[in-house]
Amino acid sequence: MIDYGRHFSEAIEALHAEKRYRVFADLERIAGRFPQAIWRPGSEHGGEAREITVWCSNDYLGMGQHETVVTAMKNTVSAMGSGAGGTRNISGTNHPLVELERELADLHGKEAALVFTSGFVSNEASISTIAKLLPGCLILSDELNHASMIEGVRKAGTKKQIFRHNDVAHLEELLKAAPIDQPKLIVFESVYSMDGDIAPIGAICDLAEKYNAMTYIDEVHAVGMYGTRGGGISERDGEAHRIDVIEGTLAKAFGTLGGYITGTKDVIDAVRSYAPGFIFTTALPPALAAAATASIRHLKESQVERDGQQRQATRTKDVLGGADLPVMPSDTHIVPVLVGDPDLCKRASDHLLARHGIYIQPINYPTVPRGTERLRITPTPLHDDTRIEHLKDALVETWNAIGIPFASELGETTARTVEVTSLVVSKAGG
Amino acid sequence: MIDYGRHFSEAIEALHAEKRYRVFADLERIAGRFPQAIWRPGSEHGGEAREITVWCSNDYLGMGQHETVVTAMKNTVSAMGSGAGGTRNISGTNHPLVELERELADLHGKEAALVFTSGFVSNEASISTIAKLLPGCLILSDELNHASMIEGVRKAGTKKQIFRHNDVAHLEELLKAAPIDQPKLIVFESVYSMDGDIAPIGAICDLAEKYNAMTYIDEVHAVGMYGTRGGGISERDGEAHRIDVIEGTLAKAFGTLGGYITGTKDVIDAVRSYAPGFIFTTALPPALAAAATASIRHLKESQVERDGQQRQATRTKDVLGGADLPVMPSDTHIVPVLVGDPDLCKRASDHLLARHGIYIQPINYPTVPRGTERLRITPTPLHDDTRIEHLKDALVETWNAIGIPFASELGETTARTVEVTSLVVSKAGG
Ligand SMILES: Cc1ncc(COP(=O)(O)O)c(C=O)c1O
Ligand SMILES: Cc1ncc(COP(=O)(O)O)c(C=O)c1O
Repeated sequence: MIDYGRHFSEAIEALHAEKRYRVFADLERIAGRFPQAIWRPGSEHGGEAREITVWCSNDYLGMGQHETVVTAMKNTVSAMGSGAGGTRNISGTNHPLVELERELADLHGKEAALVFTSGFVSNEASISTIAKLLPGCLILSDELNHASMIEGVRKAGTKKQIFRHNDVAHLEELLKAAPIDQPKLIVFESVYSMDGDIAPIGAICDLAEKYNAMTYIDEVHAVGMYGTRGGGISERDGEAHRIDVIEGTLAKAFGTLGGYITGTKDVIDAVRSYAPGFIFTTALPPALAAAATASIRHLKESQVERDGQQRQATRTKDVLGGADLPVMPSDTHIVPVLVGDPDLCKRASDHLLARHGIYIQPINYPTVPRGTERLRITPTPLHDDTRIEHLKDALVETWNAIGIPFASELGETTARTVEVTSLVVSKAGG
Repeated sequence: MIDYGRHFSEAIEALHAEKRYRVFADLERIAGRFPQAIWRPGSEHGGEAREITVWCSNDYLGMGQHETVVTAMKNTVSAMGSGAGGTRNISGTNHPLVELERELADLHGKEAALVFTSGFVSNEASISTIAKLLPGCLILSDELNHASMIEGVRKAGTKKQIFRHNDVAHLEELLKAAPIDQPKLIVFESVYSMDGDIAPIGAICDLAEKYNAMTYIDEVHAVGMYGTRGGGISERDGEAHRIDVIEGTLAKAFGTLGGYITGTKDVIDAVRSYAPGFIFTTALPPALAAAATASIRHLKESQVERDGQQRQATRTKDVLGGADLPVMPSDTHIVPVLVGDPDLCKRASDHLLARHGIYIQPINYPTVPRGTERLRITPTPLHDDTRIEHLKDALVETWNAIGIPFASELGETTARTVEVTSLVVSKAGG
């Protein structure tokens, strides 16, 4: 007799042993009072619900509670109900979704767009389908690409090569080595979400043109937040027109749910027609599509949220850094603080929540490389100066209480280790 | 120079040539008046919006417009905003989602449940993860399993064998041939959505016990609709306790969005901890979770919707069959009407919509085998007798106008062909 249960319990045991078993915090967001939320602790923390401040949300601009977005969603539920009622092909193409796709094509200056139920699915389905439609395609993939892109590359089943993170010279080597008439697809992100660094989009496009490759960029952590209309880093850098496929999510800065790609009419139509992950699943509900459209339209016009986010992110880095906390270098709104050990990282997170009412999820392997375990902080425009002061005090107390090294205590070696190991992350963002 | 655009345009051209290029109908559901909707035709149909009746929705019980569901969704948007704001692990586990998982575990009488952003993702992520955690696992998969299950089997990368559709003798042969100590996972559906037939769940469980295999059932087209609490065919047949993993969707009879699995605490925890498709993606918004919970709770108590659906489905079969329309045999609420040719099928659908204001999407290859192209009709409790009469008249007019064979005109041969070819479908439901 096979003991099936044992295989599953052992798999879970292994995570406990490595101190990377994940416990999800049970939260109740409070619309109108973001970043405040109600936390329902497990019995080990007394079990009583209490109010806390969320410091690790990817509702980066607080759009998930924006009046316009909330109203659009509620009105559409009233008018059209709760669900789409079918796949896109079989009765599920609702009019708000058609409008959303137009809005997205416009946002990135592309001919067409296609919406999926998530950014994960959009990457997995699109990368695999595009590569499969190009005979003998070689995929060139940044080594720090997100799990969803890795799944897309795997599913394609074509040849692939991994280039060192943001390393244009290495990418060129690989491009040069490949046969000139072999179709090539370069897949990369604009903002890498765990370190907050940015890809050299222009230089990658130069190479794509020189070696006649297609380009596919994931702007999940940039859309809504960069560029004067929220078109992402490719808009900010004036490179959007040079990229073949721009992918993004509706679930982070836009505050709703869903993912998408934009590109030429034919690429979009081909993915629409051939990708199982798009075809054989229920469409996004009209209310979510309408909410996303309202959010995108608002952020096309308004700079207030983007300015506020940049201001508060910079201030957070300054204040924490000024208190000798080991803020890792980042070019964006993402503020990682190094802990360097999975157990300490989990304990710091628990302590912050139970003692200070501050919620920052520990980020451990495999989301980041071992030795670079961290607290990843995402200040939004709504994390005001008082909250930043409170955060700093709480972190300093926690660092002392748990015994985590401050920046000045980190030797040269540690700093170098972190830099080197952050080149071998496998996945990110979960 | 590689002409990338050509590969995509040719892929689209191939679909046109085969008459299976899909055009999505642009619909606007009207809450409170389901199955009525506004259709926005393309310019080829005059382009003016008009009201039509949807006859192919998978909002099988009309719950997508149910007062309780709509109210739960709106109230939760007001209270908690539009999105979850993060992955399950990083700030995205919202309290309504925790409650929904409890509700689902209870629905199927299992220890635990796990919610995904879609039924597609739940199948792909769960089947692959479960099989990977069982060393040397052999997957036994019904040949008519849905695309999402096929993707899960592929992603597992383990050995697999396909058994003939609902063929218990063939399944036993395969089980008997495999080494006794090899872990085995049987994956199948309860209701097959394109033909409306039902799996012999009890007999499959007998075999699973005899040969010590795990069982995984997809109840996507049955949950909410069968069993006295809406627990699906496994509840109706009293077999739920014998099945290891029951998978379902929130996007069909429950009227919202999302998918799930239920099972033992350990299986659920293992999938939660190891499946990239679960981990690295934004959680379902609280409003959708609350709407789904409201829908499930309602259908646990109320028999009205289930009774109404069965009554109207039976009536539809009787009325269409009585008019010599080629209704295909079906044991469920699904009413397939045979056309047998992709071009005629598309033309019949266009004609019904433009001329009669009746929307039934054509179902062509690869969703069903070539030669079995059909109109798939899904009567809900809200498709009343008058609508059924109107449907019958419209179909008869269309069959005459387009020249599609009536039941009495179909030879023995055709009938046999259909029966045989329906054993080779590759995917379904899109
Ligand atoms: C870079 C990147 N791409 C894609 C995704 C998936 O997007 P979604 O949450 O919409 O599935 C994520 C994280 O969730 C991500 O970090
Ligand atoms: C049998 C079956 N399983 C799973 C799915 C996917 O469910 P969802 O629409 O929630 O992605 C479908 C259809 O959509 C289906 O027909």
